[in-house]
Amino acid sequence: MKIMILSAVAAFVFALALGPVVIPWLTKKKFGQNIYELAPESHKKKQGVPTMGGIIFAVPMLIVSLAAACHVGFRTPFLYVFVSAFGFGAIGFTDDFIKIHMKRNLGLTPIQKIVPQVVLAVALSVAAYLSPNIGSKWILPFSGREWDLGFWFIPITVFVLVGTVNSANLLDGLDGLLSKVSAIDFLTLTVIVVLMGGYDRTIALFGAIAVGSLMGFLRYNGYPARTFMGDVGSFTLGGALVGMTLVTRLNLLLPIIAFAMVVSALSDILQIGYFKLTHGKRVFRMAPLHHHFELGGMPEPRIITMYATFTAMLCIVALWGFAT
Amino acid sequence: MKIMILSAVAAFVFALALGPVVIPWLTKKKFGQNIYELAPESHKKKQGVPTMGGIIFAVPMLIVSLAAACHVGFRTPFLYVFVSAFGFGAIGFTDDFIKIHMKRNLGLTPIQKIVPQVVLAVALSVAAYLSPNIGSKWILPFSGREWDLGFWFIPITVFVLVGTVNSANLLDGLDGLLSKVSAIDFLTLTVIVVLMGGYDRTIALFGAIAVGSLMGFLRYNGYPARTFMGDVGSFTLGGALVGMTLVTRLNLLLPIIAFAMVVSALSDILQIGYFKLTHGKRVFRMAPLHHHFELGGMPEPRIITMYATFTAMLCIVALWGFAT
Repeated sequence: MKIMILSAVAAFVFALALGPVVIPWLTKKKFGQNIYELAPESHKKKQGVPTMGGIIFAVPMLIVSLAAACHVGFRTPFLYVFVSAFGFGAIGFTDDFIKIHMKRNLGLTPIQKIVPQVVLAVALSVAAYLSPNIGSKWILPFSGREWDLGFWFIPITVFVLVGTVNSANLLDGLDGLLSKVSAIDFLTLTVIVVLMGGYDRTIALFGAIAVGSLMGFLRYNGYPARTFMGDVGSFTLGGALVGMTLVTRLNLLLPIIAFAMVVSALSDILQIGYFKLTHGKRVFRMAPLHHHFELGGMPEPRIITMYATFTAMLCIVALWGFAT
Repeated sequence: MKIMILSAVAAFVFALALGPVVIPWLTKKKFGQNIYELAPESHKKKQGVPTMGGIIFAVPMLIVSLAAACHVGFRTPFLYVFVSAFGFGAIGFTDDFIKIHMKRNLGLTPIQKIVPQVVLAVALSVAAYLSPNIGSKWILPFSGREWDLGFWFIPITVFVLVGTVNSANLLDGLDGLLSKVSAIDFLTLTVIVVLMGGYDRTIALFGAIAVGSLMGFLRYNGYPARTFMGDVGSFTLGGALVGMTLVTRLNLLLPIIAFAMVVSALSDILQIGYFKLTHGKRVFRMAPLHHHFELGGMPEPRIITMYATFTAMLCIVALWGFAT
């Protein structure tokens, strides 16, 4: 555990130090977020805040986790988490880059965006299926029993991977919202991996490093944000999170600890579906759900606190099955 | 650990449910905070926000912890924490009540305020000194060795108790600041008590209940706050925190996990001392330190995030000595 503490602190200090270097550079390069035309009115004030700030935590996560893994020894589970985090992160980075160069809010087309994600997800799922450490069984929360998905493991895992990464991306709509929610999730998964025992400590190490990097990043991303994380950030976090549940076979914890992400995705799907079905009616004032609260008059920081505290409580509930 | 999870969730739901009952009642009874005349200009907008909201978490803490202790069995360490939390809380309550009835920001005179605190602190210190479970030895962080304070235990512990409670009170100057910092502290102490083993589980239980109640309270106390905790809140939190370190003999962790409180107190003392010494010069724009940042132009929620993330990292460091 001492190496976990050291690594988390190193990542925190690294991220804190990157802020004053990266933010002025992003601003100078005009990597300002072109606020999506359909975003709530109040978001207009965010015009010009640089995006792609996610590199402030992604770089420390990458470097410190590599250094730590070098120190304690590379193991297969670590590689899964690493590839999931930075593979999806690289797709997000590409999208951000194109978005900014084309001066549009949309970046890659939906097809261009989804194809590399599915390719990476298929590769990870097949590798996990064939791995003696992972295989086709998921752990059922609260009972600890196993559920063998058989060959269905592969398509279901592809869905979970792509779904989580895009849900994380959808949740990234308010200042520091995704940073806070996912920091709580990483902390929880780290505690669970330690409590479970028998798992490779490089996974817990990765979780601790994610928490440290995000704490540093929050200094710049907390409301009112001085930088947004961009797709490079949200895809890295989504990939890292689902990578950790993949190798620990705890994917079924995601609907609990990442409830905020699930709700974001479902509210979006519901809104679009209902809109098409009724030719123009809406379920929410705006989707994802956090914008619905915003348009209802709830101040942005209050919504963020609500999401973070509910996530914290759900994470405490998620510890149930691992409690003695 | 399952009882801890259940109790934390019960306290969370209880506090959430109390909000819509207590806040309108406090508003109706005109328990609005009369903003201290010397507070920063930006705080004028807080005029009329009801104070004494601390009862929203103090009542669930009191009732759920009593119920949980009834269930698992009362033990001496639990009683220390309980008396420390709600003894100091009662002093804070009295102060709040008088403050509001006199329509002044000051409440009790300094002497009226400090005397009952010292009496309670002396009683707790003597009882701890004589207790076979506590005695005169403190645990040295990081080494785990013990330090026997001998008879000095009593005056030093009185100082630590009164100092912590008043430092918590000083930190309670921005929306949700003390709630967030102390929730992180309670979580840390709970984890440490579990890691140490051998300690009475009612202490960890109390910590978990404090975390749950505060998460619920944050729904109403987070920036922009709909209620302030008042002295009833800050004294309860300070008392609970120092009560937990007293019975676990981990008082020396306080300068680390409660660094934000120590800094608040020291900046206040330094400011007043320097002002008197130089007949009118100031070290900070305003003390405690969080107001210094505020007058420097940092937005209030950004200061809160900075305090919370630094506290979280210091708490991770504090786990060092208990790590395997």
